[in-house]
Amino acid sequence: MRIPKHIGIIPDGNRRWALEQGMKKEDGYDNGISPGMDLYYICKDMGIEEMTFYGFTADNTKRPTTQREAFSEACIKAVERLSKEDAELLVLGKTSSAMFPERLKPYTTRSRFGEGGMKINFLINYSWEWDLGLQDGAIGPQLKTSDVSRIDLVIRWGGRRRLSGFLPVQSVYSDMYIVDDYWPDFRPQHIYDAVEWYSRQDVTLGG
Amino acid sequence: MRIPKHIGIIPDGNRRWALEQGMKKEDGYDNGISPGMDLYYICKDMGIEEMTFYGFTADNTKRPTTQREAFSEACIKAVERLSKEDAELLVLGKTSSAMFPERLKPYTTRSRFGEGGMKINFLINYSWEWDLGLQDGAIGPQLKTSDVSRIDLVIRWGGRRRLSGFLPVQSVYSDMYIVDDYWPDFRPQHIYDAVEWYSRQDVTLGG
Repeated sequence: MRIPKHIGIIPDGNRRWALEQGMKKEDGYDNGISPGMDLYYICKDMGIEEMTFYGFTADNTKRPTTQREAFSEACIKAVERLSKEDAELLVLGKTSSAMFPERLKPYTTRSRFGEGGMKINFLINYSWEWDLGLQDGAIGPQLKTSDVSRIDLVIRWGGRRRLSGFLPVQSVYSDMYIVDDYWPDFRPQHIYDAVEWYSRQDVTLGG
Repeated sequence: MRIPKHIGIIPDGNRRWALEQGMKKEDGYDNGISPGMDLYYICKDMGIEEMTFYGFTADNTKRPTTQREAFSEACIKAVERLSKEDAELLVLGKTSSAMFPERLKPYTTRSRFGEGGMKINFLINYSWEWDLGLQDGAIGPQLKTSDVSRIDLVIRWGGRRRLSGFLPVQSVYSDMYIVDDYWPDFRPQHIYDAVEWYSRQDVTLGG
């Protein structure tokens, strides 16, 4: 089976999941951490070389404070847990803003944890305009995320069929797989189905 | 019903359609012109304000010459037919290359035809690297396609679930609708279904 080298993960639907459970919206995020770890272990076993998680965006931080605090905290926990595994971790996003969690600053240069191995990129307070340099006056020839490679497969939970600003340059040729279930309802079968589907797609890279 | 202002069209599957008909691959493209006109009339009736057609990319021109000539000719015909309708037409792409058809150069500044009205953008010898300025040494703060607005809905024919380098910046928040039929098998129901589906999506623009 043709396995994607690099998978992008858009773990959407935490708030809708919480409402469905009769919980408050902001209580969904904490239930998204353990699915992320499950997914990491499965992808490691499959031999995936690189994963990029869409943590939160600069736009997301305009939501109510309780939600912002909840998704920030969930992302911090996720990164810290991943740092206890075998991984080469990099957190990318607008570090200059107060919305960027202090506790994640040590991860903004790529660091090897445990045995190293899989590259894991975590987008925190990310913005595609920032990434492309569209907010600056002068623009350099480098993306801010130039250390993140082309993405083969983007998997989005929560049913929406869109990228929502996720790494526009690395995603230009990505195949997109949508899981209708909300992210906290992650099941291993989702990733097996996504990778099986991916293996049946042709690879043209625009050619 | 909530109607998209700007629809992106990825008219894929011309070659696979031709093979299925027992024709040569390159003979598919000519059968994609009339579907494009049908689509234009329907979108105009629906009050769509802007459409962007993915004609061909700089990467596509690396295909065999017979195919390149066939898709170039089909795009030329499509643009010339649209110029006989009510439209504000703009052709965008790498005009500096020999792969850019001479006959389309008059359309590379936006021009009003007939009564004007709908903006129609046609990507010809397009490249996302070119668009983002990633090939140049010095990069300006402007996209090459800065006259093309944000896209609400991308509809792709031919079953592939990817953007294939289609306007990465304008597509950051686009909803993506996939039609499994090949483009030459276009039916009006495709666009009605796509727009109906779109009307049921929420609009967050990353918020």
